[in-house]
Amino acid sequence: MKVTLEAVARAIDGTVVGDGSVEITGVAGIREAREGELTFLANPRYEPYLELTQASAVIVSENHRNIGKPLIENPNPYLAFLKAVRLFAGEKERPRPGVHASAVVAPGVSVPPDAYVGPHAVLEPGARLGSRAVVHAGCYIGGNAVLGDEVLLYPRVTVREECVLGDRVIVHSGTVIGSDGFGFVRDGDVYRKLPQVGNVEIGDDVEIGANVTIDRATTGTTRVGAGSKIDNLVQIAHNVQIGRNCIIVAQVGISGSTVLGDHVVLAGQVGIVGHIEIGDGASVGAQSGVSKSVKPGERMFGHPARPLREAKRIEASIRNLPELIQTVRALKRRVEELEGLQEPR
Amino acid sequence: MKVTLEAVARAIDGTVVGDGSVEITGVAGIREAREGELTFLANPRYEPYLELTQASAVIVSENHRNIGKPLIENPNPYLAFLKAVRLFAGEKERPRPGVHASAVVAPGVSVPPDAYVGPHAVLEPGARLGSRAVVHAGCYIGGNAVLGDEVLLYPRVTVREECVLGDRVIVHSGTVIGSDGFGFVRDGDVYRKLPQVGNVEIGDDVEIGANVTIDRATTGTTRVGAGSKIDNLVQIAHNVQIGRNCIIVAQVGISGSTVLGDHVVLAGQVGIVGHIEIGDGASVGAQSGVSKSVKPGERMFGHPARPLREAKRIEASIRNLPELIQTVRALKRRVEELEGLQEPR
Amino acid sequence: MKVTLEAVARAIDGTVVGDGSVEITGVAGIREAREGELTFLANPRYEPYLELTQASAVIVSENHRNIGKPLIENPNPYLAFLKAVRLFAGEKERPRPGVHASAVVAPGVSVPPDAYVGPHAVLEPGARLGSRAVVHAGCYIGGNAVLGDEVLLYPRVTVREECVLGDRVIVHSGTVIGSDGFGFVRDGDVYRKLPQVGNVEIGDDVEIGANVTIDRATTGTTRVGAGSKIDNLVQIAHNVQIGRNCIIVAQVGISGSTVLGDHVVLAGQVGIVGHIEIGDGASVGAQSGVSKSVKPGERMFGHPARPLREAKRIEASIRNLPELIQTVRALKRRVEELEGLQEPR
Repeated sequence: MKVTLEAVARAIDGTVVGDGSVEITGVAGIREAREGELTFLANPRYEPYLELTQASAVIVSENHRNIGKPLIENPNPYLAFLKAVRLFAGEKERPRPGVHASAVVAPGVSVPPDAYVGPHAVLEPGARLGSRAVVHAGCYIGGNAVLGDEVLLYPRVTVREECVLGDRVIVHSGTVIGSDGFGFVRDGDVYRKLPQVGNVEIGDDVEIGANVTIDRATTGTTRVGAGSKIDNLVQIAHNVQIGRNCIIVAQVGISGSTVLGDHVVLAGQVGIVGHIEIGDGASVGAQSGVSKSVKPGERMFGHPARPLREAKRIEASIRNLPELIQTVRALKRRVEELEGLQEPR
Repeated sequence: MKVTLEAVARAIDGTVVGDGSVEITGVAGIREAREGELTFLANPRYEPYLELTQASAVIVSENHRNIGKPLIENPNPYLAFLKAVRLFAGEKERPRPGVHASAVVAPGVSVPPDAYVGPHAVLEPGARLGSRAVVHAGCYIGGNAVLGDEVLLYPRVTVREECVLGDRVIVHSGTVIGSDGFGFVRDGDVYRKLPQVGNVEIGDDVEIGANVTIDRATTGTTRVGAGSKIDNLVQIAHNVQIGRNCIIVAQVGISGSTVLGDHVVLAGQVGIVGHIEIGDGASVGAQSGVSKSVKPGERMFGHPARPLREAKRIEASIRNLPELIQTVRALKRRVEELEGLQEPR
Repeated sequence: MKVTLEAVARAIDGTVVGDGSVEITGVAGIREAREGELTFLANPRYEPYLELTQASAVIVSENHRNIGKPLIENPNPYLAFLKAVRLFAGEKERPRPGVHASAVVAPGVSVPPDAYVGPHAVLEPGARLGSRAVVHAGCYIGGNAVLGDEVLLYPRVTVREECVLGDRVIVHSGTVIGSDGFGFVRDGDVYRKLPQVGNVEIGDDVEIGANVTIDRATTGTTRVGAGSKIDNLVQIAHNVQIGRNCIIVAQVGISGSTVLGDHVVLAGQVGIVGHIEIGDGASVGAQSGVSKSVKPGERMFGHPARPLREAKRIEASIRNLPELIQTVRALKRRVEELEGLQEPR
């Protein structure tokens, strides 16, 4: 599909600034976009990418400075971009409401008429589905689990008994919510299981990636706050409390009972020990290991994680270590020489 | 639910020492417990937490010293605690025995009358189930696989053909037992698959978390010893041999043919190379990378993993590295000065 | 099963050099083989293992030097070994073609007569299966997804809509292909989802382990090149491009839009940031963190990853750091002494 920028602007209620005859072949994020594609700028933090993006045109809010590329102006660039996505990719089809004949819905469970339950899905006794919920093929919803309105579960998600998902929660395939926490007590030579009788609660507008594991609390509740986004293969242990609007990138592991504030960002493969607190707005760089509580707003990095500035200074020191060793060796020789000069006395 | 400590003590066959009128609202582990909750102390290694726990009361063995909190005495605190868990959380319902109509059980497979096979579970030809086994919805049991007595598989577990699970093994959702080992041989420019014709054997009383992967052996058997406990998202490669009563925390990876002794503890996100041995009772700190065999009882830490004391000394040195560089620079200047003083001669 | 080497040689069209009466009990790779087993040498890079292998006999190409063990000569040792595997392990049974009655195949989807679709598998509208494809129990094939000839999906694999798998692709249980990329834009205090409208394409002869996650592109295609092999629990983010014949070991994470050349090797638990390039033939050591592009053929190691030689020199420096600190302290004392000697002047 190829359309002129002018035509795109009309379709998304925007105004072209610059050459409207440019041909647009698709849409993409500002970092991923290639020539021929249209992108957008909604967050001032991404301004620097305006100079770097390979996109052929950018949707911006009104009265934007000239960047040497055609623009589409619209007061809400993100919503305008969503319209452009639909223009090029088409609306993703929502499955038609209804319960597939092969789904197993326990007696007494009522599925709202506008919800969808796919082939081979299982709803155990007491499970509850919100309005317009979508439960794709092969999902398992345990006893008394609650899914909010417009929840979207991709194929083969497991939600164990008593767990609660808020409105508009999205969960990708293979993810397990409510598995038993890893709780054992040593009894002589063997380990005895500590029953895990709590649950998991996921706030509104949370998105959870594929093959994630979120353990139920030993007692009480493991919690993910509203608006937080969790990438693939993340591990969240029992009794962890995650605040609102956090970003947890792929393969992060958070140990038991640790508390994250709001707006925390954990980059990929970070590990966090149990029983600590990560303050509001703190961020942790990729692969770091956090073993102590982190203050609000602090940026941490490394093994063990340290404040970013300190981590960078240490990292630079390490890089220069072989040179330092040479310097010390040379110094030693020079001191020996100086000592030799004194010897005669 | 709120009951007096006195009432709890009666229900679990214990004796109150101290104020029996305290109101108890729930139960929890000694580190997780909050005010109002009851916990227990079974293992002397957890004694230090007695001073720190926020629990309102503690189940202890008899004749325990005063800790300034009401106690319940019982000769077996763990079993007494389990009773308390049931008092507050209720017994987890065991599914009623039987095979769900939507399960696909191959001809010739006989399910014991006291076992449960859930909706959409699949039992391939030759699969065998022990007495009181529970196979939840969507599990797949491959050809000739064997599940012991009282095995408990949560929804959507895969056990591939020929694998063997001992008695009372618990496996959480999404876990795959018996996937092909990662075995290829290079043939010019391409890799050719090495058929993986071995299996996996899991000992009695093992518990395996969610979305774990345990590969079948190239030939022979990948083995997890009795009583070992494996957390979520762990990777165990082909031909690995894990001893008894090991603790493997989330996101650990163990490479091919490595051998773990008994009572080994691997903290979260540890990586272990292939073809080495980790001795009995050894432990490895979180995120460490182990590239050489580890002696029994040794405590290892770091990248690469070193004995804990050495790792700590090196870690301290690194922390002081920026200061060391300053010291060396200052020394250099002083030596230059001293050399200058000698120059005239 | 026990047979003489002579009998094995006859069965696999080889010639014994040395004692043909040795009894062979099984087959294994050159590193895993134990006494009584037969192994093979196809790749000269594995020559060093010839001295170390515990195998009782080795299949080699013709005119091989004496290694003090009986040999079977055959011009293609790998193919001869595959025959030996079948001799000992039997041919793995291919399921009989057909669609299981419990599978849900959307109207209009045609399954080739020589393909297999297992119990509770789901094929959504527009899905296409190649000749002799095997889709095991509980797999989900999304709308318009395409599976090539002889594709083999183990139980409970998810292939989301529009994704394409080449010929002879093997995917192990629990893996998710085509989950949404982790794409959000910040809008004030909250994150808004960036629709992920691209797909995933997997080249011919790729093998993908268990519980792997491969995200669909934001727009365009996430790609895994022909012949590449991916181990368990690997994360491949949106818009990643992986070349041909790469080896990606367990628990590796590759961030968005990163490009790997051909023949790249990433060892276990490696993390790679987004938007960089890893050149042809480059390799990265276990647990390393790669934050910058890597030149073709370069061998990288560490946190942050550096060229191997440099990483080793730094690692050695760190090991000697406590000693260096002693040296500097002693030097300081000696300089002070020298300065004292000068004082009188």
